[in-house]
Amino acid sequence: MINKAGREIPQFIDDYKDVSPYAGAFESLGERIKTTAKIKSFVPGSKKLLATIDEAIEKTGLKDGMTVSFHHHLRNGDQVVNLVMAAIAAKGIKDIHIAVSGIFAVHEPLVKMMEDGVVTKVTTSTFNPGPVAKAITAGKLKKPAVLMSHGGRPRAIECGELHIDVAFIGAPSCDEYGNMNGTHGKSACGFLSYAYADAMYANNVVAVTDTLVPYPCCPIEISQEKVDFVVQVESIGDPKGIVSGTLTITDDPIRLKIADDTIKLADAAGYIKNGMSFQTGASSTALAVAAGVREIMKERKIVGSFGLGGIHSYFVKMLEEGLFKNLFDTQCFDIEAIRSAAKNEKHMGISGSQYANPHNRGSVVNNLDLVILGATEIDTDFNVNVITGTNGVIMGASGGHSDCAAGSKMAIIVTNLTRKNFCIVRDKVTTITTPGETIDAVVTEYGIAINPRRKDLLEAVKNSDLPIIDIHDLKTLGESLVGEQTNCQVTDKIVAVVEYRDGTVIDTVKMPL
Amino acid sequence: MINKAGREIPQFIDDYKDVSPYAGAFESLGERIKTTAKIKSFVPGSKKLLATIDEAIEKTGLKDGMTVSFHHHLRNGDQVVNLVMAAIAAKGIKDIHIAVSGIFAVHEPLVKMMEDGVVTKVTTSTFNPGPVAKAITAGKLKKPAVLMSHGGRPRAIECGELHIDVAFIGAPSCDEYGNMNGTHGKSACGFLSYAYADAMYANNVVAVTDTLVPYPCCPIEISQEKVDFVVQVESIGDPKGIVSGTLTITDDPIRLKIADDTIKLADAAGYIKNGMSFQTGASSTALAVAAGVREIMKERKIVGSFGLGGIHSYFVKMLEEGLFKNLFDTQCFDIEAIRSAAKNEKHMGISGSQYANPHNRGSVVNNLDLVILGATEIDTDFNVNVITGTNGVIMGASGGHSDCAAGSKMAIIVTNLTRKNFCIVRDKVTTITTPGETIDAVVTEYGIAINPRRKDLLEAVKNSDLPIIDIHDLKTLGESLVGEQTNCQVTDKIVAVVEYRDGTVIDTVKMPL
Repeated sequence: MINKAGREIPQFIDDYKDVSPYAGAFESLGERIKTTAKIKSFVPGSKKLLATIDEAIEKTGLKDGMTVSFHHHLRNGDQVVNLVMAAIAAKGIKDIHIAVSGIFAVHEPLVKMMEDGVVTKVTTSTFNPGPVAKAITAGKLKKPAVLMSHGGRPRAIECGELHIDVAFIGAPSCDEYGNMNGTHGKSACGFLSYAYADAMYANNVVAVTDTLVPYPCCPIEISQEKVDFVVQVESIGDPKGIVSGTLTITDDPIRLKIADDTIKLADAAGYIKNGMSFQTGASSTALAVAAGVREIMKERKIVGSFGLGGIHSYFVKMLEEGLFKNLFDTQCFDIEAIRSAAKNEKHMGISGSQYANPHNRGSVVNNLDLVILGATEIDTDFNVNVITGTNGVIMGASGGHSDCAAGSKMAIIVTNLTRKNFCIVRDKVTTITTPGETIDAVVTEYGIAINPRRKDLLEAVKNSDLPIIDIHDLKTLGESLVGEQTNCQVTDKIVAVVEYRDGTVIDTVKMPL
Repeated sequence: MINKAGREIPQFIDDYKDVSPYAGAFESLGERIKTTAKIKSFVPGSKKLLATIDEAIEKTGLKDGMTVSFHHHLRNGDQVVNLVMAAIAAKGIKDIHIAVSGIFAVHEPLVKMMEDGVVTKVTTSTFNPGPVAKAITAGKLKKPAVLMSHGGRPRAIECGELHIDVAFIGAPSCDEYGNMNGTHGKSACGFLSYAYADAMYANNVVAVTDTLVPYPCCPIEISQEKVDFVVQVESIGDPKGIVSGTLTITDDPIRLKIADDTIKLADAAGYIKNGMSFQTGASSTALAVAAGVREIMKERKIVGSFGLGGIHSYFVKMLEEGLFKNLFDTQCFDIEAIRSAAKNEKHMGISGSQYANPHNRGSVVNNLDLVILGATEIDTDFNVNVITGTNGVIMGASGGHSDCAAGSKMAIIVTNLTRKNFCIVRDKVTTITTPGETIDAVVTEYGIAINPRRKDLLEAVKNSDLPIIDIHDLKTLGESLVGEQTNCQVTDKIVAVVEYRDGTVIDTVKMPL
């Protein structure tokens, strides 16, 4: 069947839930039922502290075919996935579904586990390009990977589509009874937002910590009544991989021009104003946009409402300068963000569900004015790909991309029109992450294309000197520079299912030929 | 049938769930399933702010036979229950079940609603003596009231036994999208702990606020994705009734002696030590115990772990002096507590479930060393009554009484042996709130009775100069002073069901003759 994004979707996908095709960004809403959760009562005097991960595997009854979950706030420094999965593999347990909110290069040991049948399914919301993503693309996983957005993951957990048998939560600070936070301790990584749903709904919850603090841990992010067991290990992560020092703004003149035009566009559209809310990723171009918006806000004495998302030092600076009243944080991107999260009550950690779940009573993305997003490809219907390269190899996942695009009043894609010999604007993107109906504009070094659905925006900029261009012309221009583009050839084998944030299937990733 | 506390319990009670008799304090545990919750999705751009409570009643579809819930942190200053119920009554809606975490004298308008059939059932965890409690005792409520503990209430909500159709949450600070806190604003009442379960599980959640703040409210206690609607009213409460200024220690020499002996008992038993945790109520005797423990801690340079419960200025002082590392707060008892809750991150608000629910993975009462509790009566099996007077009239409910007794290592009842011409120690208490198996000692002006189950405690004090006395001798002594005691005569009509924290029936309250 053809879904609303124009993609051919099978009616049935092996080893995947019932397929519900993408039907439009706001079509699959209405009333929803949150699922049940199974809890074992703990009587006074019972202990939660276990000596080893092995013991946690035994006590939780972890066995073949189960789903185990992890969060990714330790990023490329994470040791929890590797520690736990090595222990699971050593016990001869097979057919594990790993539901981890993000996968990094450090998780390379999963590749062999995929080959050995220890890991047969992966559900994730973030990748960085690397061995696991490559192995999934190459068909090494028995069952298709499921790629969700940051809002889609807690939605799936809360409605029971993603049932977790054992959640292992890396806890930078934890007490013996399971109260924990992510903002303190030698392996502090910032708020544990993406683990909150796991702690609420998993049948078993195990905290894995390298910093056991006296009871009670303070502040408490995930509280004791949700935690079955606590395991102390030597290290949950390598601080060097957990965070970059401080992220940096691009010094490339082309990207600076893109950033500058983006700011002018947002300003012309009226989104740089008192009470504004704003999210950017941590790319060097996005940070240049943040830096430029900051200058305007200071100059015009604008006070914004909130900065949102993965939080970086530029947003921290804007908070501390009073340019934002608050930050809403779901993960810390750098050391400054972690420092601020630990000490500034205006810098608030929120759950993935509060951030972006479309099936609750209104997540924060619904209150977002302006978001700056990236793309590996964008098509003439404004559909965006951040999942695969043009060669079909998985190199990312939605993260908050499709969530923020849907929720925000203005979603701008910033990208060079061409990279190497690729034109980013295409007839059809290789994989759809974010539907075009939720994207408002794309800013390139060769011009700004505005989604024709946004007549108000076209009207707002018509007397400006912004280089507005039709997206088809932008594609033609790009192809005149690097040649006509074709999509990669693929086999019939589905290696990943791309879920839209509401759990419908917006696309699939097939193994390249 | 006779339950494990020795009470005759009917096998069936009209207008009450299936009766499960009390079977022992720790017998009804094991694996539990948390219930589902029904959520309506909110798309970007939809508004939550309504003009009136009437509109909230209409939008939530509130109708005959439904359950509406409230929290009681505004205490005797609360206007939310009266405002909402008046609007419900004015619409001609009948047969409402009010699930309010506490009922105060200010809620007197409910009496007429009970007479008129607007309110036919009440579920609550706290009373202060007054018109509503009297009316329930007098049989004015069509269905039996259900009295729960503070831990039992979230347990019942989480497992679906207490299903809430519409939760109305009084919010001292709230933004238009429903983020709220109780610690800021002109009607600040402290943390909203007992409302957290309502916000998680009610079909509809309405915030009622008199202080609408710009988005986002900060800090956030109950977050937007749980809230359907926000109604702004002129006042949610009268500050004079919300809090007493500062609670005061008794200056009665008899009570001071009781407090002094209580401290000596706790000390002899080894509970006044580094890492100790402690809860007291706000009675003048309990505060005298807190004050005395504070002196010892300062003198011996003892640093405790946490103070728990309803928080008062003495615990705040102990936190600020470094005698406790932290406070766990479920409600603020005075202005100093509210001030501290608003600004000190070591003073942590917790949910009712985290506080005391027996059916989660371990609530904070499980970590409690020492609790000082009151009694209207105690029997020779150490069963305690805090619900009815000896005349059978309802004047309280468990609150955290049975929760803390069950969780703590040492639960001490402090009480005068006689009041007016009543002897507090009796053959049988009029109503059992807290089973004797969870009470360790009772301290009176005529001696200290230790529960014979606590052989370790009897051993610990045997060489002390504490006035230890058998509880039967204490009763005989009391009766020698005020005469032999009889229980009040009652009819067959059950006006209230007393649930133990695990949802079993520990007793019933029958209408007095």
